[in-house]
Amino acid sequence: MKYKIKEINIDAGEYTVILNVKDAKDMGVRSLDRVKIISPKKTVTSVVETTTSVVKEGEVGMLCKVFEEFKDPQLKTVQIMPTSRPHSVELIKNKIDGKALTAEEIREIISDIASHNLTDIELTAYVVANQLQGMTLDETTWLTKAMVETGDTLELDKKPVFDFHSIGGAPGNKITLLVVPIVAAAGLFIPKTSSRAISSACGTADILETIARVSLSMEEIKTITERIGGVIAWGGNVNFAPADDVIIRVEYPLSLDPYSQLIASVLAKKKAVGADYFLLDIPIGPGTKVTENELANKYAHDFIEIGRRLDMHVECAITYGGQPIGKHIGPALEAKEAMMCLEGKPPSTSVVEKSVAMAGILLEMGGIHNGKSVARDILDSGKALAKFREILEAQDGNPDLKSGDILPGEHKAEILAPSDGYVIFLDNKKLVRVARAAGSPKDKGAGLIFLKKRGEKVDRGQPMYEIYADNRHKLDEAVNLSNMIKPYQVEGMIIAHVPGPGRSATVHK
Amino acid sequence: MKYKIKEINIDAGEYTVILNVKDAKDMGVRSLDRVKIISPKKTVTSVVETTTSVVKEGEVGMLCKVFEEFKDPQLKTVQIMPTSRPHSVELIKNKIDGKALTAEEIREIISDIASHNLTDIELTAYVVANQLQGMTLDETTWLTKAMVETGDTLELDKKPVFDFHSIGGAPGNKITLLVVPIVAAAGLFIPKTSSRAISSACGTADILETIARVSLSMEEIKTITERIGGVIAWGGNVNFAPADDVIIRVEYPLSLDPYSQLIASVLAKKKAVGADYFLLDIPIGPGTKVTENELANKYAHDFIEIGRRLDMHVECAITYGGQPIGKHIGPALEAKEAMMCLEGKPPSTSVVEKSVAMAGILLEMGGIHNGKSVARDILDSGKALAKFREILEAQDGNPDLKSGDILPGEHKAEILAPSDGYVIFLDNKKLVRVARAAGSPKDKGAGLIFLKKRGEKVDRGQPMYEIYADNRHKLDEAVNLSNMIKPYQVEGMIIAHVPGPGRSATVHK
Repeated sequence: MKYKIKEINIDAGEYTVILNVKDAKDMGVRSLDRVKIISPKKTVTSVVETTTSVVKEGEVGMLCKVFEEFKDPQLKTVQIMPTSRPHSVELIKNKIDGKALTAEEIREIISDIASHNLTDIELTAYVVANQLQGMTLDETTWLTKAMVETGDTLELDKKPVFDFHSIGGAPGNKITLLVVPIVAAAGLFIPKTSSRAISSACGTADILETIARVSLSMEEIKTITERIGGVIAWGGNVNFAPADDVIIRVEYPLSLDPYSQLIASVLAKKKAVGADYFLLDIPIGPGTKVTENELANKYAHDFIEIGRRLDMHVECAITYGGQPIGKHIGPALEAKEAMMCLEGKPPSTSVVEKSVAMAGILLEMGGIHNGKSVARDILDSGKALAKFREILEAQDGNPDLKSGDILPGEHKAEILAPSDGYVIFLDNKKLVRVARAAGSPKDKGAGLIFLKKRGEKVDRGQPMYEIYADNRHKLDEAVNLSNMIKPYQVEGMIIAHVPGPGRSATVHK
Repeated sequence: MKYKIKEINIDAGEYTVILNVKDAKDMGVRSLDRVKIISPKKTVTSVVETTTSVVKEGEVGMLCKVFEEFKDPQLKTVQIMPTSRPHSVELIKNKIDGKALTAEEIREIISDIASHNLTDIELTAYVVANQLQGMTLDETTWLTKAMVETGDTLELDKKPVFDFHSIGGAPGNKITLLVVPIVAAAGLFIPKTSSRAISSACGTADILETIARVSLSMEEIKTITERIGGVIAWGGNVNFAPADDVIIRVEYPLSLDPYSQLIASVLAKKKAVGADYFLLDIPIGPGTKVTENELANKYAHDFIEIGRRLDMHVECAITYGGQPIGKHIGPALEAKEAMMCLEGKPPSTSVVEKSVAMAGILLEMGGIHNGKSVARDILDSGKALAKFREILEAQDGNPDLKSGDILPGEHKAEILAPSDGYVIFLDNKKLVRVARAAGSPKDKGAGLIFLKKRGEKVDRGQPMYEIYADNRHKLDEAVNLSNMIKPYQVEGMIIAHVPGPGRSATVHK
């Protein structure tokens, strides 16, 4: 039977259609069951919700994601057929039960994920099972291949192709905005795609989006890279390893990122852009994703080995990420700090130091001797800034942009030092929670500026950091959260004072 | 700011409201963020979806679940405030990381679950983490208490209160429809609440619903039990341990039921109805939830111990569930078979044997000697049928109902024996998959009737079982699935024939 398409302009996350209860009953489907929607051109699987009034009998209400798939002025009706849950749900259950999966089985799961055939519940089961049961090196290799094969791949006419990536957990890690222009200015080709935030306060795509267009097409990534050497694009707009963005959808609200999934997600995107040489940055320290040196070495080993199986030369840099990189956290604020570094006015040295070191390794992988000092020359001479402006222009940004043009959120609060002393610890995870409470990464102006970092002296009542937000409520929530969880530790600070009989507590706040 | 309520008649699972993108932006919330909805009487947390057209600025579209909460002709507007994700998500992550939770923390998670404050993604993370990391006996006790305390409790004027429950996995286990009338006819009080199917083909509530109303109020459960001794109600309609039905919502599509969650869910509902004596049926055998005797004994031990901590006398019966109980699977079909047993015309002896044995133990827990033979007398004398008719009448069913009045689905197919031999194995899990593919438990007429059970002789081409469905497509899917996964094993059956050179395969289908 044919159903008339009705657009329902609701942006739900999942693929969802709405059927009249009577049609649903005739078809034998209930809310949360699955149907296949069939047009002459394609078949899409969707979850069903039912209504007694929003759509009439004979109509199918398509929410945004499904409507996008069938958006065609010629197409008035589709066929709808009930369908059972995909076999890959059984395979996910096998993983929950601790069984190793075959190449075929992993391919089936990833194919269903990439085709949006799994519900949030099923996706979450996959992610949590993977987090707890893990995957072997073989499974991880198959997972990587499956993620590449279920998406598009980039074929640059220029070779070899370079790429790099930072594993998360170090807030403020805006080095991509420096590394890509340095590497491109050195004459290498680096088609960098970045994701949005998973467990961090914001991702590179969130940052650059505040000053340029990051939703680039495959063709744009190719032509811009071939023309000017580098690009900084959001990976979610192109179809590289599309399963990853579907998986991130459930990883994000849980701040989860299973070991093997992390490797596969990173390597699949690098394989998909055709990287021949790939440098991985693994920040370690309290509060990063990879806290211990031992785990960082395990990651490095596995990344290199799986890279080898995929014909990719992988190197890894284990870096210090025990406190934020630089002084700014948040989309607009990080764009601003990166711009300041490119302009030669860095608010702190750590961003510059790390960017030059990483770019230097990439240059050496590309056969350029003394990579680090070449990289520093490129930055100091203004060539990196010039290249970054070329990238901005190619991505519809303002090529004359200055750091002073980039403004944080309009609402601002200061967090004051609770006592005199030295900052002995900045808690990455707590700082990220505060930045997120302020609205980052979705609210572009939300974030933090550090006035004092680890080792610096503070006086009681002196501002330690500023919180910015686009929204008053969220600023209040962030301030309350900061006061509650206290992301800073100042030496000599009294956590609580329990007075003796007859005495009242001294206030230390 | 006040938002005008607009009903959006869509039955999504989660608590969902729809905001105009402009309002959402002003408020600083995006799709899948959370808001608090505030009326003078209550505050509800909901997930947000955004639209450019379905609701106008200043309006809030409430999908069914949220609309139900604010359904009041006097109430035209509500306040809406952005809110961050609940702290219990961090606690769920602690469980994923393998940490034990405190009584307080478990209470917080369960309270958020019961209040619909968690999304499907967060709920699934809780369930899968619990499945894989487990809980200690202390945690399980706290979990049980938290589930009781976040819901209502029944206070019968008649004491003591008896109850029983079967752990799942044995298809066709419709004994409740016999046990409750037998026990009630013996003069004991048994306010039985049942859930819908989790991992089985159908639950007791699904079965009885085909012939009576199972959505009873608390008051109805109380008055019917006090008046006639027994009731068979759907637990989801009353507010006993309400977290359980929210959890089942994500357990069901994954067919998962974590060890500690199973104990807590069962005992919380029994504690909530005020049970003093509780008998647990633990079916074991291939394909049941508890396959091994060792695990059954562990369950029995833990159920009894946690019962003791909750002042409930618990006994357990480990029963054989390695093949379906009786001959029918599916909501209407199981109602029909139970009715046939009560009428003294059982299609097989296993349902009667098990029901009489279970009722017998309950009678002895209640101080009645020779419980089993008393139970059999009650069944054979027709007193159980008379009591069941009283229950039907009290629950708006037809008190004159006969088994012949109950009809299965209109679409039917036969599955034929592939060879001569004896039935040596019926695979519970595969049979459940076939029954589910046919539409059970949602389609009331869907299910299976066994013509041959374990140990019986079949001839090639003779029907082994019938599949019934309300819907043609689903019947076809069930038949295809049955042919593919072959839930029956017939001794001497050739799985496949690989012919030698120059010879073609003999067809064995």
